Amino acid sequence: MKEIPKTKFKETAEQNQKQFFDYLRLESVSTQGRMISETAEFVKSMIEEFGGKAELLNNLGGHPIVYGFFEAGQKGNAEKTLLFYNHYDVQPEDPLDEWKTTPFEPTIIDEILYCRGVSDNKANFMARLNAIQLLNESEEGLPCKVKFLVEGEEEIGSPNIDLYLEKYADLFEADACIWESGSKDSEERFTIDAGIKGIAYFDAWVESADVDIHSSKGAVVDNAAWRLTHALSSLRTKDHQVTIDGFYEMMKPPTELERSFVEKIPFNADKLKENYGLKNPLIVEKMDRTPQEALILYPTLTISGLLSGYIGPGSKTVLPRKAQAKIDVRLVPGMDPNDVYKVIRKHWDKNGFNDVQLKLLTGEKSFRTDLSDPFVDIVLNSAKKVYGEDVVLNPNSPGTGPMHGFGKYLKVPILGSGTGWAKSGAHAPNENVRLKDFYQGIEHMVTLLSNFGS
Amino acid sequence: MKEIPKTKFKETAEQNQKQFFDYLRLESVSTQGRMISETAEFVKSMIEEFGGKAELLNNLGGHPIVYGFFEAGQKGNAEKTLLFYNHYDVQPEDPLDEWKTTPFEPTIIDEILYCRGVSDNKANFMARLNAIQLLNESEEGLPCKVKFLVEGEEEIGSPNIDLYLEKYADLFEADACIWESGSKDSEERFTIDAGIKGIAYFDAWVESADVDIHSSKGAVVDNAAWRLTHALSSLRTKDHQVTIDGFYEMMKPPTELERSFVEKIPFNADKLKENYGLKNPLIVEKMDRTPQEALILYPTLTISGLLSGYIGPGSKTVLPRKAQAKIDVRLVPGMDPNDVYKVIRKHWDKNGFNDVQLKLLTGEKSFRTDLSDPFVDIVLNSAKKVYGEDVVLNPNSPGTGPMHGFGKYLKVPILGSGTGWAKSGAHAPNENVRLKDFYQGIEHMVTLLSNFGS
Repeated sequence: MKEIPKTKFKETAEQNQKQFFDYLRLESVSTQGRMISETAEFVKSMIEEFGGKAELLNNLGGHPIVYGFFEAGQKGNAEKTLLFYNHYDVQPEDPLDEWKTTPFEPTIIDEILYCRGVSDNKANFMARLNAIQLLNESEEGLPCKVKFLVEGEEEIGSPNIDLYLEKYADLFEADACIWESGSKDSEERFTIDAGIKGIAYFDAWVESADVDIHSSKGAVVDNAAWRLTHALSSLRTKDHQVTIDGFYEMMKPPTELERSFVEKIPFNADKLKENYGLKNPLIVEKMDRTPQEALILYPTLTISGLLSGYIGPGSKTVLPRKAQAKIDVRLVPGMDPNDVYKVIRKHWDKNGFNDVQLKLLTGEKSFRTDLSDPFVDIVLNSAKKVYGEDVVLNPNSPGTGPMHGFGKYLKVPILGSGTGWAKSGAHAPNENVRLKDFYQGIEHMVTLLSNFGS
Repeated sequence: MKEIPKTKFKETAEQNQKQFFDYLRLESVSTQGRMISETAEFVKSMIEEFGGKAELLNNLGGHPIVYGFFEAGQKGNAEKTLLFYNHYDVQPEDPLDEWKTTPFEPTIIDEILYCRGVSDNKANFMARLNAIQLLNESEEGLPCKVKFLVEGEEEIGSPNIDLYLEKYADLFEADACIWESGSKDSEERFTIDAGIKGIAYFDAWVESADVDIHSSKGAVVDNAAWRLTHALSSLRTKDHQVTIDGFYEMMKPPTELERSFVEKIPFNADKLKENYGLKNPLIVEKMDRTPQEALILYPTLTISGLLSGYIGPGSKTVLPRKAQAKIDVRLVPGMDPNDVYKVIRKHWDKNGFNDVQLKLLTGEKSFRTDLSDPFVDIVLNSAKKVYGEDVVLNPNSPGTGPMHGFGKYLKVPILGSGTGWAKSGAHAPNENVRLKDFYQGIEHMVTLLSNFGS
């Protein structure tokens, strides 16, 4: 194929900036149900404006899924179909007071574009559309068929995606899938994920009384905050080992090929500490695993939220009647979210915490692509062409997504590619994408589609 | 003295109801600095309207203290002075959604008066003024001199009261003191406290990073919520024993006389559980002490608040960068708030929690009246006359107040008397006083002043 001049990626991005910014302004926070249907309609119309066909699927419950389709060009390979997976929903924008820009107003400062959802993952979707436009405008045209699946429940654990994948397996049929996400690491190496961890996310809570009680009664009366504190701390030692019977035992051991990729993954602890301003040593320093093994091959168990009693300024002397926590568990192959629920419940019951309630809010299984699949080489080679030789491949990402159903129903190899960098701040205030990474993301999609179709 | 007819207590209370309700409407939340100076002025003007002299003291910092003085009647004993201690400040009204009335609008439902601060302790102040009016209107007149000290920082631990007591020891000089509080227990026995526990109230917090981090990084990155959870649970076993070295060792052992009073205190666990809707057994069931000993003779260590990360509806997958707690410690004689700070700090440092910050917000020492003082009998006898034989005397209350400075600078015996009942809900939503208890409180103050002056 005739090389597209580098300047074209930026030019095209700038032509399409208005549409991109309008997309970013839509406050599509799925966990709060904000602007969901408007955003789904907007995604559909974008695909159509870029020359594709699109359709909303919403007959199986949950937020609408957008199906998109682009025909291969005259000179393209109509026998091959690449599926892009994206999501139009984003995380909540709080804590508001830590944003230096307005969360849903796209703002460029020093060649960095700030907006909630830009990195995770509206920019990735936009880069793909830009690439398709560039290829459609080229002499050769689009080198293969392209499909899109853009869902609206990724940030709440994609509770309905498997229903749609099962029912619409023919519609979404493809030879391979490019996942929604990807970023450069803290040393600017482009990173490709060939799988994903699963998740089990819980509400946990205790009610100890009908009313808040004067704290002087703490001599005889139990309180919800103490119960929850003890129940939580019983799940994991202060040296970070999960203490739940059967938790680690659920893990399916990784293959030798997977282990060999994990060994090659670079890891820079100092950079990580600097990027996040970490105050404490990494927890793996006290554990029997490398950071890479912890991130890729082991499950996690973390607290994402705590609330009980009075927490305003000054003192209020109460025994709280209720205490609540959010618990986030990341899963590796072999672990089922429902089984995680069961082992925690059993652990608490066994240790006298029957009064601590537990509810599974979202659950997804893990997935790893077979690393001997030829698609792995196609993606690795196109990435090396755009990003240089030191591209990193993770057998699975430390993060989560609904990949399991894609593997099960579409039977495709799945690899990630995206426009983030180490300080993109997905899920955090001041989420951002560097413009140069965005332009490079377009270039990578052009290159990958060309390699895939040829 | 000529008996005042029972009907007079209610009549007088009703005459003065407008003033009482205006007082209740003042939102004098000291921890938030709301309406403090207005309320102090209001208290001064009330004392004056009831025929006393009053003065605001505010030259030593903090919220103003109201000094009040009533001369003994012509036939009264001008050699004896009784000091009433009250406070005009109240607790915050949250959680708002649990009130069935408007928190600062006095509302009578079924002969119960609801309002924030009514039980703790605006009704007690009002009962005392009503009693003084009744005695002033009687043939004999007021049987002794009466002084008032009404402060505005009791609910934040009275940080400045000792300064005023030291400087104004002559102004507040008295033979004995009646404390601000008192109530009937769950079996309607009138209860008198001859002392008070101390308090050490802390902010505790951890910062683990500069930003909230995507929870998938929990494989390698520590988080503030885990740190705080482990630090807190290290302070007390799940069977409620405080594990801090030197904590229990600070206690001064109680005297035999004190122990003999504690043994006589009734305790009804079932009633307590019913009143508060307790879901769990009392914590003393697993401890080496009776409930009465726990409430009176032992210190407590409780969590009054927790906050970290995301706690809204649904899931947000973050590692919180910060976690906060409120810790409430109730002290018995021998324990100094600053020493409590030191032993917690030392415990955390020793156990690897140097990153957990601790700040003492309020501190007060404990106090117990010498139970062989004749004033103890005067109060017990007047109470038995009004409330019946089964009056209860606690060597100290399980609650807290700034009694230590009164003992130190004024050298007076101190006993409590108030108009609460078991469901008054001090510090909780729907705080209330039963009207019949309010009228009886007026009667008790009349009787006590008469016995004291004779």
